[in-house]
Amino acid sequence: VTPSGVITLTTDFGHRDPFVGVVKGAVLTRFAQARLIDLTHEISPHRPAEAGFWLARAYRYFPGGTVHVAVVDPGVGTARAILAVRASGHLFLAPDNGLLAPVVARAQPECVVRVDTAALARLGVEHASATFHGRDIFAPLAAELACGRIEPEALGAPLQVIVPGEIPEPEVGARELRGNIVTIDHFGNLITNIDAALLKRFSSFEVEAGGRTFASHRTYADAPAGEYLVLVNSFEVLEIARTQGSAAAGLSLSRGAPVVVRGHVV
Amino acid sequence: VTPSGVITLTTDFGHRDPFVGVVKGAVLTRFAQARLIDLTHEISPHRPAEAGFWLARAYRYFPGGTVHVAVVDPGVGTARAILAVRASGHLFLAPDNGLLAPVVARAQPECVVRVDTAALARLGVEHASATFHGRDIFAPLAAELACGRIEPEALGAPLQVIVPGEIPEPEVGARELRGNIVTIDHFGNLITNIDAALLKRFSSFEVEAGGRTFASHRTYADAPAGEYLVLVNSFEVLEIARTQGSAAAGLSLSRGAPVVVRGHVV
Amino acid sequence: VTPSGVITLTTDFGHRDPFVGVVKGAVLTRFAQARLIDLTHEISPHRPAEAGFWLARAYRYFPGGTVHVAVVDPGVGTARAILAVRASGHLFLAPDNGLLAPVVARAQPECVVRVDTAALARLGVEHASATFHGRDIFAPLAAELACGRIEPEALGAPLQVIVPGEIPEPEVGARELRGNIVTIDHFGNLITNIDAALLKRFSSFEVEAGGRTFASHRTYADAPAGEYLVLVNSFEVLEIARTQGSAAAGLSLSRGAPVVVRGHVV
Repeated sequence: VTPSGVITLTTDFGHRDPFVGVVKGAVLTRFAQARLIDLTHEISPHRPAEAGFWLARAYRYFPGGTVHVAVVDPGVGTARAILAVRASGHLFLAPDNGLLAPVVARAQPECVVRVDTAALARLGVEHASATFHGRDIFAPLAAELACGRIEPEALGAPLQVIVPGEIPEPEVGARELRGNIVTIDHFGNLITNIDAALLKRFSSFEVEAGGRTFASHRTYADAPAGEYLVLVNSFEVLEIARTQGSAAAGLSLSRGAPVVVRGHVV
Repeated sequence: VTPSGVITLTTDFGHRDPFVGVVKGAVLTRFAQARLIDLTHEISPHRPAEAGFWLARAYRYFPGGTVHVAVVDPGVGTARAILAVRASGHLFLAPDNGLLAPVVARAQPECVVRVDTAALARLGVEHASATFHGRDIFAPLAAELACGRIEPEALGAPLQVIVPGEIPEPEVGARELRGNIVTIDHFGNLITNIDAALLKRFSSFEVEAGGRTFASHRTYADAPAGEYLVLVNSFEVLEIARTQGSAAAGLSLSRGAPVVVRGHVV
Repeated sequence: VTPSGVITLTTDFGHRDPFVGVVKGAVLTRFAQARLIDLTHEISPHRPAEAGFWLARAYRYFPGGTVHVAVVDPGVGTARAILAVRASGHLFLAPDNGLLAPVVARAQPECVVRVDTAALARLGVEHASATFHGRDIFAPLAAELACGRIEPEALGAPLQVIVPGEIPEPEVGARELRGNIVTIDHFGNLITNIDAALLKRFSSFEVEAGGRTFASHRTYADAPAGEYLVLVNSFEVLEIARTQGSAAAGLSLSRGAPVVVRGHVV
């Protein structure tokens, strides 16, 4: 994998404070040519699963050789491991707290290592604070990987088993899929963990959630304004939406709510 | 126009989700040296007019040869056209839903084309999702324009008439101007569509809105703290403000509210 | 100081409007290779002290030779001065309204000048609007400094006394420190102006605020979920936090609230 020089950042740091800016400063101090792209900093605080969900669906839109750093890290300062992963031509750095489970499940992992302190010491990554590893450990590691001075293999020993994700994968039956709402986007779309690939077994289907049934459409504008619908969104997962409105504002469904797909097979 | 390599992004995607990040990934995949600048991603959802208002007032602060991409696109996935425009030395890409009307009205349009599918196919822009043209169509087009591999003229046939903007231009009388509040900024300033140029006919004026009358000042600090005022803001439009406070929080005036300027001519 | 080409931006402009984007456009128009990093744009409107607090704690994570621009400027358009400062190998630009007081107090200022209109005229910085000096004055100045075409010394005469900061430094007693909450971060941590260096005189301490006493820990995860604690955070100041929760949401303490450290000396 030739490094692209691009580093994406996914955190729960928000936009109010200088946390993200300072992470970028720490990257640029080691690798002045880095191209830093914000994936999102509005992950619900302390929800690694939400970060992993988005990262697993978003990474492939970046150039091969991109380093994706995800820091949603309630265990910062404890003995939790840090993972470096190479998969499908991309590199990933995150705490080993379930965040990378959806990436490892969907991409082809070639290399999964637990970053060790000897490797950090060789890179001069020392005296990290107890509470801000995004700046003190992830940023310098990302810089070194993104400029090609080091490979994930040199960061530690391979790990066979990583911490599993918090959100279970959907239950798949012959005529039924049972998943959950994992995140709600800016438009109020309720996004599930039901991948489009699972729907292909059905010739048609409807979706139940919160005691309501939703018909499936191709795009938002295929239903009249104000109407609820389900569609396979552009990240190839099922979502509950409302044409020119917010489904979240109109329905009392929140993160974790169960979603059932009832399929028909001709 | 020599491309500057700069691409600005104006959307209603918000900052919560990875939508903007993924658009940038798609640009960098085609044009690794692009300089991506966020103009705003907090346009009120599905309000192309607000995006067009800001873009028309903001583009000229960027280097000539910049590509300005604006995606506020409730009709995504339908037959609505995509416009490519060259005007006053800048390039613009947006859905043809009224968004670019204020740009075309104020800049000098040299070229307005409707992007056609043959041009997209020649550029390898195919298999677009039904719901995320920002990533699947606008991003690759912006990359190709920004690196100078293609000109707007090559993207489709010229268009004589574009979809008009939603917000009417102000009514201009001999002693009176009637406009509207079009947006409310972060400081709570109520920003109107009344351009400063329209005020030059008057030797002095006062402004009425929501049953109140406002005196005109040069800058915020020219009125005591807490006082309401109107001024010509730095984007050369009339706004209702409150010194060291939020006019929006104190007055019950929202988007669309009528604003009347009563002018005096010596 | 060799310029790094990096410019950080700290403002109260928010993310809703194109203000920050337009500042970046104005920088790129003069210095196309500038690397623009957002430190924060969510400073409480018209609170220079909060901007100065963060900037003084954040600048050192950027490469030497970085230009830090901070625009929280309720006096824009009045006779308030603009400062250019070189300190600890970094450059700073801000209105002279107390914002830079914490920087000048903590970094080693080599050069503090009041930018004069003759220098602005030589650089072609003229016809500034009355309300948006971020775009019309700070952006071009930052571009000229960041590309090395000019030094702070050339921008005006040295200034001996700058406007002091709004937030008093903590009162330091033999067994007691009295400070204040200066900002609340995205996670709801209540951040004080009590620097870690002041705590070294004590072998142990507890903290009182809002009628409660808080025990000191090394990191968030050292206390059970839901528990309040104090710790020295990664910016080396004392903060009141809540493990996996928001201290601000659970305690009725806001900006300005007094915080007392009671120390023990063995």
